[in-house]
Amino acid sequence: MGRLALTGGGKMIADERRLRSRWKTANMDEALREYTGAKFVQMTNSGTGALISCLLAAGIGPGDEVITVAYTWTATVGAILRVNAVPVFADIDPQTLTIDVADVRRKITPQTKAILPVDFYGHPAPIPELMAVAHEHHLFVIEDACQASTAEIDGQKVGSIADMTAFSFSGKPIYTTYGGGGAYLTNDRKLFERGLLGGQHPTLIAGVAQDPDVLKYASMGGTGDNFRNVPNDGMMQLLDADARTNARIANCDYLTSQLEDVPGITTPYVRPGYKHVYHYYTCLWDPDVHDVSRDRFCEALNAEGLFVVAYLKDANYRFTPDSKPIAAGGPIHLRTIFRERNLYGKGCPFQCPHVKNPPVYAKGDLPVSEAMADREFCIGQPDLSPPCDDRDMRVIVDTITKVIDNIDELR
Amino acid sequence: MGRLALTGGGKMIADERRLRSRWKTANMDEALREYTGAKFVQMTNSGTGALISCLLAAGIGPGDEVITVAYTWTATVGAILRVNAVPVFADIDPQTLTIDVADVRRKITPQTKAILPVDFYGHPAPIPELMAVAHEHHLFVIEDACQASTAEIDGQKVGSIADMTAFSFSGKPIYTTYGGGGAYLTNDRKLFERGLLGGQHPTLIAGVAQDPDVLKYASMGGTGDNFRNVPNDGMMQLLDADARTNARIANCDYLTSQLEDVPGITTPYVRPGYKHVYHYYTCLWDPDVHDVSRDRFCEALNAEGLFVVAYLKDANYRFTPDSKPIAAGGPIHLRTIFRERNLYGKGCPFQCPHVKNPPVYAKGDLPVSEAMADREFCIGQPDLSPPCDDRDMRVIVDTITKVIDNIDELR
Repeated sequence: MGRLALTGGGKMIADERRLRSRWKTANMDEALREYTGAKFVQMTNSGTGALISCLLAAGIGPGDEVITVAYTWTATVGAILRVNAVPVFADIDPQTLTIDVADVRRKITPQTKAILPVDFYGHPAPIPELMAVAHEHHLFVIEDACQASTAEIDGQKVGSIADMTAFSFSGKPIYTTYGGGGAYLTNDRKLFERGLLGGQHPTLIAGVAQDPDVLKYASMGGTGDNFRNVPNDGMMQLLDADARTNARIANCDYLTSQLEDVPGITTPYVRPGYKHVYHYYTCLWDPDVHDVSRDRFCEALNAEGLFVVAYLKDANYRFTPDSKPIAAGGPIHLRTIFRERNLYGKGCPFQCPHVKNPPVYAKGDLPVSEAMADREFCIGQPDLSPPCDDRDMRVIVDTITKVIDNIDELR
Repeated sequence: MGRLALTGGGKMIADERRLRSRWKTANMDEALREYTGAKFVQMTNSGTGALISCLLAAGIGPGDEVITVAYTWTATVGAILRVNAVPVFADIDPQTLTIDVADVRRKITPQTKAILPVDFYGHPAPIPELMAVAHEHHLFVIEDACQASTAEIDGQKVGSIADMTAFSFSGKPIYTTYGGGGAYLTNDRKLFERGLLGGQHPTLIAGVAQDPDVLKYASMGGTGDNFRNVPNDGMMQLLDADARTNARIANCDYLTSQLEDVPGITTPYVRPGYKHVYHYYTCLWDPDVHDVSRDRFCEALNAEGLFVVAYLKDANYRFTPDSKPIAAGGPIHLRTIFRERNLYGKGCPFQCPHVKNPPVYAKGDLPVSEAMADREFCIGQPDLSPPCDDRDMRVIVDTITKVIDNIDELR
């Protein structure tokens, strides 16, 4: 006995390099735990994957209502549709452009299971107030912090405040060099483990989960989707995330100091105690002041070489060389899917037999969201972040000033 | 007039480098079109994302049946669940370990919408025969070629044969250096465009699609998921994909020449005209020959330092340092979800009101799949591909030989 390694003998392949293989591993969760203070972090393939994982962790499915905003990127609402739940839209605060807590209260029904606020453009939603509302009504708060991964409320990093938080790393305040990835964060081990079932690798679930009710689904990776984040360590700019964010805030503060008195332009508002991290620098245009439409004003800025976008209407159309403005955008509740309410040809999930009161979505539902979507114009993070500094901001200010000074050419 | 660039004046930011920005773009579709001969290719975030895109392109949803195999990775079946359709399992051919065409015929019902064969371990499924069956019954054939992106049937590359084909690039025959990504391929422009609605960027759909029935959903990125492939060009090893595959085939042929007469081991079968690209080199163990179980045999090989895995049972547990064998694996129809048939707590999608005959899944349904899952043992692509050559293969053969020569230690 003892010739076989298993029974005590020598190993055939003792040197790991004898087979010149390429097995690789990955792990960035720990750095994010330390950065945010959240107890549990799971890397995902994207912010959307993180949001879907959170919704599944909260047990949300067909017939359940989730209160969110229509003033957001598609992924927020797409995640709700993906778990076959019903999005219910609350209006926004006209200053921060984030969810209006009073309207959330009005939209709660016995079918409501969660509130899904968005830290839009980098300004945190009023999470502490929402947590109070949620506590009162036994709801989950899932924070879409995809655009705000370095933001803070009263000195506390987002990611450690709501029940669960979703991050995105594609060109966001924390980003990956390969351009993708996301994460969900929570202080609750049960939610963390159930989120793994959204689409983590079966063997990762088997290795990490302790709850038998989670482990029993490990063999399918939960519901069988793939939300795995694959790249290796080191691709994320976590170490300089705060420095980069603070430099961008300084740039945006400079823009505001130079633009706040320009007639027709309302510069971004920042709520006291809230750290706005400016994924976008979003101003509001008043078409009546100069008798020039927002779209015409943006057209003039783009012609000057400054990329500004009406984000809700056109989306970021620099995504690929083939990309074009979506044009038919606007707040989410006005888009085709919500008029047709028929996702797979059979009315799902809006008119699913599990839905108690099938929703109707119409123009006029959300007056503030609809008005702001027609007025906003946005400058994206790449033009606001290092290496751009006040010299670059000066170019932006001069460009806007040139257009304002010659505004009569646009009428 | 003419001071503004829009009205003919000079540009403020004529030099693209004046704002030191980091806008990036990505495009790998063209190289894959050229490589496979498929007319249309869309990059996705993963093979799973590609499969879901294909199913949505084919209009598959609640109440629809998709015939597939239980002898596969979770993603094949997970994709079907994600679009709320019902998986119906056909058995496999015991030699190629791919779908059994005769059993597919038996499983067709009026609710069947598609056949989803898998090129498992790198051996193509019998796509030409399946296309004939599908034509007869007006079904789609969606080929899961995630493990076989360089494979061929009668000299034709997979990707250009079935109605739609899904590729994965995470450690597969074609792979990305960042470790993720996928693509779907088709010769049909309508299916290509509808697949974009699975989760491509809204502005990409707006830029690429021509069909008004597709364009009208662009503003949500279709159903709002995110299947976007984000990395830049150049990360894929497409240029040496065939050379690498052929070198791996030569390594596997050498293994087979050395192992085919070893008692208790059946080496992989390759159907004439089919190019098996060996994502795994999968042998069958006969526990009766040496009176030693497959698991005990694998345990001994792993103790020697050779990583072998019972893929269906344990999955590839080298995925992360935290990973563990799933242990409760086996063919997909035996896993918890298919016993409970209750994905979101309300019986979806198995017992959805749109389902005509709710399925029941049980041990004994698929005798060949169940038997093979108990016998297979697999060596993964990293230990079979360059830089590994016949010296490395010799180590693998010697290791297996050592265990066989000392097999009495295992009883």
